[in-house]
Amino acid sequence: MSTQKIQFNINTFLFNKIMAIVLLISVSVNAQIQKTEPPFWYAGMQNPELQIMFYGKNIAQNEVSVSNNIVIKDIKKTENPNYVFVTIDTKNSPASELVFSFSKNKKVAFTKKYALKQRRPNSAQRKSFDSSDMMYLLMPDRFANGNPNNDNDKSVTEKANRSLPGGRHGGDIKGMIQHLDYLQELGVTALWSTPLCEDNDKAYSYHTYGQSDVYKIDPRYGTNEEYVRLSAALKKRNMKLVKDYVTNHWGAEHWMYKDLPTYDWVHQFPGFSQSNYRMTTQFDTNTSAIDAKNCMDGWFVPSMPDLNQSNPLVLNYLTQNAIWWIEYADLDGFRVDTYSYNDKVGIAKWTKAITDEYPNFNIVGEVWMHDQAQMSYWQKDSPISAIQSYNSYLPSVMDFTLHDAFGNVFNEDKASWSDGMIKVYDNFTNDFLYANTNNLLTFVENHDTGRFNHIYKNDFKKYQMAMTLIATVRGIPQTYYGSEIGMAGDKGKGDADIRQDFPGGWAGDTNNAFTKAGRTEEQNKFFDFTSKLFQWRKGKSVIHFGKMTHYIPENNVYVYFRYNEKETVMVVINNTAEAKTFKTNRFQENIKNFKSGKDVLTGKAFDLKDEISLDGKSVLILELN
Amino acid sequence: MSTQKIQFNINTFLFNKIMAIVLLISVSVNAQIQKTEPPFWYAGMQNPELQIMFYGKNIAQNEVSVSNNIVIKDIKKTENPNYVFVTIDTKNSPASELVFSFSKNKKVAFTKKYALKQRRPNSAQRKSFDSSDMMYLLMPDRFANGNPNNDNDKSVTEKANRSLPGGRHGGDIKGMIQHLDYLQELGVTALWSTPLCEDNDKAYSYHTYGQSDVYKIDPRYGTNEEYVRLSAALKKRNMKLVKDYVTNHWGAEHWMYKDLPTYDWVHQFPGFSQSNYRMTTQFDTNTSAIDAKNCMDGWFVPSMPDLNQSNPLVLNYLTQNAIWWIEYADLDGFRVDTYSYNDKVGIAKWTKAITDEYPNFNIVGEVWMHDQAQMSYWQKDSPISAIQSYNSYLPSVMDFTLHDAFGNVFNEDKASWSDGMIKVYDNFTNDFLYANTNNLLTFVENHDTGRFNHIYKNDFKKYQMAMTLIATVRGIPQTYYGSEIGMAGDKGKGDADIRQDFPGGWAGDTNNAFTKAGRTEEQNKFFDFTSKLFQWRKGKSVIHFGKMTHYIPENNVYVYFRYNEKETVMVVINNTAEAKTFKTNRFQENIKNFKSGKDVLTGKAFDLKDEISLDGKSVLILELN
Repeated sequence: MSTQKIQFNINTFLFNKIMAIVLLISVSVNAQIQKTEPPFWYAGMQNPELQIMFYGKNIAQNEVSVSNNIVIKDIKKTENPNYVFVTIDTKNSPASELVFSFSKNKKVAFTKKYALKQRRPNSAQRKSFDSSDMMYLLMPDRFANGNPNNDNDKSVTEKANRSLPGGRHGGDIKGMIQHLDYLQELGVTALWSTPLCEDNDKAYSYHTYGQSDVYKIDPRYGTNEEYVRLSAALKKRNMKLVKDYVTNHWGAEHWMYKDLPTYDWVHQFPGFSQSNYRMTTQFDTNTSAIDAKNCMDGWFVPSMPDLNQSNPLVLNYLTQNAIWWIEYADLDGFRVDTYSYNDKVGIAKWTKAITDEYPNFNIVGEVWMHDQAQMSYWQKDSPISAIQSYNSYLPSVMDFTLHDAFGNVFNEDKASWSDGMIKVYDNFTNDFLYANTNNLLTFVENHDTGRFNHIYKNDFKKYQMAMTLIATVRGIPQTYYGSEIGMAGDKGKGDADIRQDFPGGWAGDTNNAFTKAGRTEEQNKFFDFTSKLFQWRKGKSVIHFGKMTHYIPENNVYVYFRYNEKETVMVVINNTAEAKTFKTNRFQENIKNFKSGKDVLTGKAFDLKDEISLDGKSVLILELN
Repeated sequence: MSTQKIQFNINTFLFNKIMAIVLLISVSVNAQIQKTEPPFWYAGMQNPELQIMFYGKNIAQNEVSVSNNIVIKDIKKTENPNYVFVTIDTKNSPASELVFSFSKNKKVAFTKKYALKQRRPNSAQRKSFDSSDMMYLLMPDRFANGNPNNDNDKSVTEKANRSLPGGRHGGDIKGMIQHLDYLQELGVTALWSTPLCEDNDKAYSYHTYGQSDVYKIDPRYGTNEEYVRLSAALKKRNMKLVKDYVTNHWGAEHWMYKDLPTYDWVHQFPGFSQSNYRMTTQFDTNTSAIDAKNCMDGWFVPSMPDLNQSNPLVLNYLTQNAIWWIEYADLDGFRVDTYSYNDKVGIAKWTKAITDEYPNFNIVGEVWMHDQAQMSYWQKDSPISAIQSYNSYLPSVMDFTLHDAFGNVFNEDKASWSDGMIKVYDNFTNDFLYANTNNLLTFVENHDTGRFNHIYKNDFKKYQMAMTLIATVRGIPQTYYGSEIGMAGDKGKGDADIRQDFPGGWAGDTNNAFTKAGRTEEQNKFFDFTSKLFQWRKGKSVIHFGKMTHYIPENNVYVYFRYNEKETVMVVINNTAEAKTFKTNRFQENIKNFKSGKDVLTGKAFDLKDEISLDGKSVLILELN
């Protein structure tokens, strides 16, 4: 029964009072269906099965039927009578509006319209991010407050308080949209924002990893429609939108956690038990079962109930939610949080379902490990996980061992057997362990690590070395908001310090780093270099997909080449404090008949015949000709 | 022409003078064949082809034929006329004496007898060392001087000088034979002596890795016959002899290096060029060819010409030499030096040829790397090297990452995310990368590393923890001479300091640690513990071949189980300084219905129902019942 069908006799005198009653009745009647998820779907999906979850008080007491000759393949009810999961077959069904009827004693008690929408053209074959991209990671609460009116939305608990380091600061989607010029000028081609779905934790909700509604953008960031506008605005600029997806857990404020469909929807000990975080138990053949269980099923933190992906209802809920967002917001990729903490069989099914639906869709998983074989394990078609006949189907993992190498290397002026540039070199010697090194995300920092400019005390030369590396080695370079203008922040002081507000994102900010005129001289120095580097990289297929040959660093100078049939780029990184001159003949197998190299950063030409000289703590990116 | 056939008219008066002439002529005639290698061979080998190298002045000018209807399959001559390589087919040939004839202008110039000997029964199916063994590594020059008469053999340059740390000290094979009781009492079942073949370097030859004749025991160690006696004496005690084989290089005093059969017998730059030692270039898909070449073909040190195993003559020479020693000295295994510095294709052929001949023969290669995937690469049937379709055929590698973990762990009283016992635990989490973890050599030290008792300042409790670990985890435990009596030595002072003389090995030594009465109280404490541990291990199939389950260390206490269908052993290592009590219920999946555990070291019984307590820096090895 829908509200529209309720008839009233109204006289003017009683209008206000009656309206109150109408609203009351409406609520009560709507309460039969409080949530329908996914709220709508799309016709013509590769997987025609759709499992719709209807939620409402005692809804499971009803029989369910559907219009348009749609076949109901399965109806699942659980121990909680407020849920019913209805699986329909959408095969051959055009975009249309279905009507679900809920009956009791063979009488229709109420109905629910359900839209099967038209997909965008070529939706299934959508392109995604790859090694031709430069991915920019930002935290929406900390980037730019485009709409101060949504800072204190009534529907959510935590209000804006910029004076709290761990509070909500007011950044939002509108702020992101407003600064796409800035990102484009920087050379960004893909935008990874940390999660934007609602996180209604009472405090410390700004990171938004403890989501309370995964079908709804957090109102402090904007609306679902605004998120679609961001996606469209990016596409217009040939930029890509990467959604940060969290499969491992929800926030304790998630509405379903407060009325669990099944007891085992989350991992119960009962309730909270902390993960031991030892992800090696996922493949360790010596592990005890209890340790493995405590890793995978334990909760990340008490406020984040750990989702049980081995429950098919949970898995399917997460899969459909992910696909829904791809279709709805026209997404170009996922970054998946805490990928290797998930049940590995469940998460592989989730990943495969998505990539079966979108064969070119890229998904990068957070696998924070310190050993290439262990990281490789999680990448699709890994020769390492093949040892255990496991395939995660995850296309991309993060190059955390390269990140480890960056930890102190640029302070290591003196080379030794294992110090200095050899640490960076060593990382690439294990590339053969990966199924696909072009699909590794390379980064010097992210929102969970120390900030580069803090660790290296805003040393511009060291920043240049690090950025040059991730911009020119194999993989997908990812930068972290603010570093491009020299932003720092000390992880030792807590996460908030590495997640400070971008200057210029708030009305009244005295420093507006979004514009050349607003930036300080120092900020422009960082920005101009970064922009030059990544603008150059945009057009360089040889960097995106070329082969790599590197040479054992000698005297702390690292030399490597990227090449394809058309082009060769020679990169030189001098990590000593002194100027260095070195002979070129050692590199003959790559220099071949090239005579000179033009430095991308300075435009200076270098003769390759005999020797090359460069300053201490400096780089050359030479296009050979 | 043989000396016997020379006719003389002799009268008494001229006897002395003529004898001098005879000797002169003999030398000149013998000079036709100065070396025949292998000096003899065996009938009935699996590979019937035998390539005999004849060496003599201009020997290549001759035609070669052989008796007994043996077929000559190939005769190889090189740019050096002093060598000829004759390949015969020994198939179906019984043990016999062959005669090779060397002819010039169709006239036999001289002949050479060549024996095909009878093999020992079941030679091909000989058993070898495995994880049921305890391998004891010693350096023969530093263990015991059983025969002072051979200390200054005239045929070699360097004489004994015990006052020189890097000099020859006089230890020998006889000294080893004399102390087999001691080794047996300790629990040793396999003896790995560093190389014993002649090393005629002018100085610093005591390590014997720069060999000058690989068919001859260094006379300062004894004779070939004495080596065979050592082997037989060990066999009598059910102990095994493991030869340290060096395929990568010879010493610069090697007789063949002074008259190279082919210019490319060794790697020429020309002559010496130092290896860059970056073994990762063997599999790094990004490596430059020049770096890979310099690693594999570069020399270890200037005094060790690097053998070119890609030359089939070299490879075959090394293969036959190895097989010859197995047959001749009835060997039970090889340890191969600097395995991963060899040409990887050549060394795999060498290894396969030996294991084809002896299917049960074990060979452990020195692969000194710091990453399990990289070490696994070198083990036979490795899933890692399979990525590159490479198979080394090497049955065993050394667990160097476990050794790395031992570096400081027992000083790490306070646990952290990555300190303390977690380092040891972590090593085993990557076991799945190996083809065969039972065939890993586990050790806390060897002749090239820091000595455990130096690093840990002779802390007996820390020694107990380390020895308990290698005695009870998977793999083949290997100990290093002297540590069992608390010997120390500082690698920082040079290699000689970690290779000091075993006390009691030299006449006049005031401390004779070979006997209980001769040992100090402290020495007996170390010895008795070590002996008890490894004597117990001898009979424990559950330790040799059982499965392992380990638990994430909590509070720096590491607990693991070894089990098979019959037995379960629970090992507890408390790496904190304080006594610890922990609940047993966490280990239920291994404790099952066992009620108590008896400590192997103290005999004390522990109730498993509730809690277990143990002292700080202590171990329990509980046999459950």
